[in-house]
Amino acid sequence: MSGTTDCCQDCLHYMFDYETPKTLVIPSIRVGFMFRFTQLLVVLYVVGYVCVVQKAYQETDSVISSVTTKVKGFAFTNTSDMDPRLWDVADYVIPPQGAQSFFVLTNMVITPKQTQSRCPELPSPSTTCVDDCDCIEGHNDPRGSGIQTGLCVNYSSTAQTCEVLSWCPLEIDTKLPEHALLAAAENFTVLIKNSITYPKFKFHRRNIMPHINSSYLKMCEFNHATDPDCPIFRLKHIVSGAGEEFQDIAVKGGIIGITIDWSCDLDWWAGKCYPMYSFRRLDDKHPVRNVAPGYNFRFTKYFKTPNGEETRTLIKAYGIRFDVIVFGTAGKFSIVPTVVNLGAGLSFLSLVPIVCDWFMLTCTRKRDLYSRHKITYLSDNADTESMSMGTTYGTH
Amino acid sequence: MSGTTDCCQDCLHYMFDYETPKTLVIPSIRVGFMFRFTQLLVVLYVVGYVCVVQKAYQETDSVISSVTTKVKGFAFTNTSDMDPRLWDVADYVIPPQGAQSFFVLTNMVITPKQTQSRCPELPSPSTTCVDDCDCIEGHNDPRGSGIQTGLCVNYSSTAQTCEVLSWCPLEIDTKLPEHALLAAAENFTVLIKNSITYPKFKFHRRNIMPHINSSYLKMCEFNHATDPDCPIFRLKHIVSGAGEEFQDIAVKGGIIGITIDWSCDLDWWAGKCYPMYSFRRLDDKHPVRNVAPGYNFRFTKYFKTPNGEETRTLIKAYGIRFDVIVFGTAGKFSIVPTVVNLGAGLSFLSLVPIVCDWFMLTCTRKRDLYSRHKITYLSDNADTESMSMGTTYGTH
Amino acid sequence: MSGTTDCCQDCLHYMFDYETPKTLVIPSIRVGFMFRFTQLLVVLYVVGYVCVVQKAYQETDSVISSVTTKVKGFAFTNTSDMDPRLWDVADYVIPPQGAQSFFVLTNMVITPKQTQSRCPELPSPSTTCVDDCDCIEGHNDPRGSGIQTGLCVNYSSTAQTCEVLSWCPLEIDTKLPEHALLAAAENFTVLIKNSITYPKFKFHRRNIMPHINSSYLKMCEFNHATDPDCPIFRLKHIVSGAGEEFQDIAVKGGIIGITIDWSCDLDWWAGKCYPMYSFRRLDDKHPVRNVAPGYNFRFTKYFKTPNGEETRTLIKAYGIRFDVIVFGTAGKFSIVPTVVNLGAGLSFLSLVPIVCDWFMLTCTRKRDLYSRHKITYLSDNADTESMSMGTTYGTH
Repeated sequence: MSGTTDCCQDCLHYMFDYETPKTLVIPSIRVGFMFRFTQLLVVLYVVGYVCVVQKAYQETDSVISSVTTKVKGFAFTNTSDMDPRLWDVADYVIPPQGAQSFFVLTNMVITPKQTQSRCPELPSPSTTCVDDCDCIEGHNDPRGSGIQTGLCVNYSSTAQTCEVLSWCPLEIDTKLPEHALLAAAENFTVLIKNSITYPKFKFHRRNIMPHINSSYLKMCEFNHATDPDCPIFRLKHIVSGAGEEFQDIAVKGGIIGITIDWSCDLDWWAGKCYPMYSFRRLDDKHPVRNVAPGYNFRFTKYFKTPNGEETRTLIKAYGIRFDVIVFGTAGKFSIVPTVVNLGAGLSFLSLVPIVCDWFMLTCTRKRDLYSRHKITYLSDNADTESMSMGTTYGTH
Repeated sequence: MSGTTDCCQDCLHYMFDYETPKTLVIPSIRVGFMFRFTQLLVVLYVVGYVCVVQKAYQETDSVISSVTTKVKGFAFTNTSDMDPRLWDVADYVIPPQGAQSFFVLTNMVITPKQTQSRCPELPSPSTTCVDDCDCIEGHNDPRGSGIQTGLCVNYSSTAQTCEVLSWCPLEIDTKLPEHALLAAAENFTVLIKNSITYPKFKFHRRNIMPHINSSYLKMCEFNHATDPDCPIFRLKHIVSGAGEEFQDIAVKGGIIGITIDWSCDLDWWAGKCYPMYSFRRLDDKHPVRNVAPGYNFRFTKYFKTPNGEETRTLIKAYGIRFDVIVFGTAGKFSIVPTVVNLGAGLSFLSLVPIVCDWFMLTCTRKRDLYSRHKITYLSDNADTESMSMGTTYGTH
Repeated sequence: MSGTTDCCQDCLHYMFDYETPKTLVIPSIRVGFMFRFTQLLVVLYVVGYVCVVQKAYQETDSVISSVTTKVKGFAFTNTSDMDPRLWDVADYVIPPQGAQSFFVLTNMVITPKQTQSRCPELPSPSTTCVDDCDCIEGHNDPRGSGIQTGLCVNYSSTAQTCEVLSWCPLEIDTKLPEHALLAAAENFTVLIKNSITYPKFKFHRRNIMPHINSSYLKMCEFNHATDPDCPIFRLKHIVSGAGEEFQDIAVKGGIIGITIDWSCDLDWWAGKCYPMYSFRRLDDKHPVRNVAPGYNFRFTKYFKTPNGEETRTLIKAYGIRFDVIVFGTAGKFSIVPTVVNLGAGLSFLSLVPIVCDWFMLTCTRKRDLYSRHKITYLSDNADTESMSMGTTYGTH
């Protein structure tokens, strides 16, 4: 029983005896100052750079967003090719739903009254022919416009081309108007409504800020300097904000990104969370190393003639696609990143004594004295129990 | 040669002599207990909070998603304005493709048989006129409906307004039906198929879970409590899940977010990864500080009259846009965040002796004894070699 | 005054006296080697795994992207149901805008000349009838095709079904062509233009790399092995890259994801940032536990008959939806994650002496000698000042 008690006592001692290093206090101002100064540097780095500048004490979340857009304005065209015509939103915004990405038609090549029929190919080295032998019935040239019928017919008074089965007459898209047809589109406005969420922080917000009232919204127009909160943008200003000229880009089309940056600091002492708008051209306007510059697509309106035949109007639409791109990261104080970053800083504090010890034992005048008192050398031949503290000094 | 050997030996000593602090063991239960207790607190924090609650040992990835939607149902309308008419999916879902965001038409203002022609403006303070002098030919009022022709014509028997060149007759959108035309849309259902990927973990999943069979899918309907895995939603329940009344929102339209939260814990011992659905209204229904409340857009159907003239039906469509918003973060054990978080925790363990030493040398009864044995003071005047261990105690 | 001076001196001493642990140097190769070896392991882990393999010294950002797509090609159909017909991009790509997600029509069920009228329901157990009593006027069966008129009429010479008010004639979508109508779609090509941004690093790039010239772009075709930089893809190769057979998927439709991985290392010594394309089927082709397999939707073309009646062509479109999915994370050296990860590694270095002390005091031959010199035990009865260093050794 006495053995058990001993064992328990040993355990208790093992658990609760406090083992602490013996220390030597050195009254050297130089070494002490160096120690404190190095400590200060580390603390300043951790507090200053990591915490204040980089906000490393925050956990972060990415934005989730929903966007609605609504374009307003109309344009009047009166060219020799077409009847005078008024274009309203339903005509020039495609698709009409007002989604995150919307397209404003600015220029076009219209090919009306196309029907499934036969017509001569557009002249090109591979389609010109002399007689029917040059055209292969059923041939399907990926760069052509349809299936060859095997006949060689007159394209014009001077040229003969293979006949194809296709939507005829064929589109001639080389005659693109040099000045954008809907040049007036530069004065259209777009209202952008954006609702965002940071799900981790259960934080919702809209780009129409609470302090804005309806009457202001009815007449305002976005301006970086004077009206940074107004959600109504003039297309011309968006394009010029992206460093482009509206009338240039309107001819062949392009893609303009409207980026909304919702970088937020959600800590109560900061409470900074509002949208920052910026504009940038997304497609490559560089003429070299580019393919299909500008932005265009073809769409159709289908009609039926009174006798039931299907006919269509093909429109090659050039215009500006506006992509509303919402991004952002919200940060909020959280214990985990704080602990991780403070802990990492503390680790560096543990390097400070190593540096100071090295300095003390190498660079100070009294280094031998310090060394003698700080460090005890166990001599190699101290195998026997006869070794004593005294010898340590002696052998050194 | 003997010098080289010495040098090498010195180097070896420098490399492989082990320097370890001399320590003092203090048999004080109070100090020992405090030491162990503080250690325990730090370990509990690191293991408990960082690892278990915050799962800081995981690396994370963001979800990538693809969504398909398919609405089912039809509605029958029989109002005085229109012929009796059946509306099916192809009529009321715009765009028809079943994308991430789909729109269900619930109310509308239809203006049929518009042609490019001349008609009197809608009466308003700026458009009423007395004679032709009040109207400027070619004037383009952004708030008007078209280009003024310069004539003042009869709008009704009592009012005269400027004539405009536009799509005539003009749309009168003030007569919006008070009860949604397609009120029956509340019983439509939508099937949402969602396929997600966490690219970093090469993890793919669909919202139709493996344990669900076809027969269940054909008849089930989503319900938070009873059928949380069914991917078929009734529109009415989506809207009420967002805290709104379907018949209210159907009149002027709105945007409802269907959020699918794919927060996953991919560690094999957790293996939790299934979609959580929730619903929220995304647009601002607040009548004040709002612009263009509700959700609507205009689209057209183009027709040709037998004599080749283009005519269109303009539809101002009010309805509910449903945005399927998929988000989520997957976590999986990874060595790097584990090491970083454990390392940070260890740093705090190194603070424990500092706290305990301070306690021992300040608050215990035997602090002088402990201090005397733990700390050796090098006296200021220990410049000479004659200083001895004994003086340390004496000068203190 | 002398007291103040003393106090100040005490303060200075407290601030600038340097306290350093007394250490014992042990000339044991085994312990020393173990110490250095363990240190090396920790350093190797931190430098090797954390820094080199996991690049934990980088801060990261998620990609923001804008996509344009442009399909090219045409197909010719000549079936018994339809007139010979050429299909071009404007016919088979829906929507036409060339967005991130585009649909190529490959198969269809066309129901032309539908009008709002009355016709017998499609026969099914719930719609067949014997006389008018079986049909309820105004009944709206969600699985039916319209509103019942209450009459029982002849569907064919053998079957009678309830009459409904609907878009008539009704679509019969059970007769889907077994071979895809637009089988030729496999040879269509698509040009994908992708512009990305890493906002945190203000880094922009396009998937058409600077070293590619226009002439190459005009004739190249993407191939993982030979042309990994060409942005023009043949639909057949996309589908086969996803492990599917084009002609199989074309019949009932499906969704193919084109993922562009922009994982970038933006450090100047790495400078690796180019798109990696891969393809994957996103919908579930598994026939069991599936609902509505494949991918289809219905859309309409609206016409007006010469007498002003609205008629429509309903097209149930089967085809392949291609979703361009852009993801990626860019990493760049940053001081904060570097400090955090180095700090965490340093913490583990502080564990090394603990391990070595334990080894030295437990496993070495001279453990008693080491222990005697390293550790001083304050005896329990050392309450009196008479205790001396010597007793420590003695009581042990």
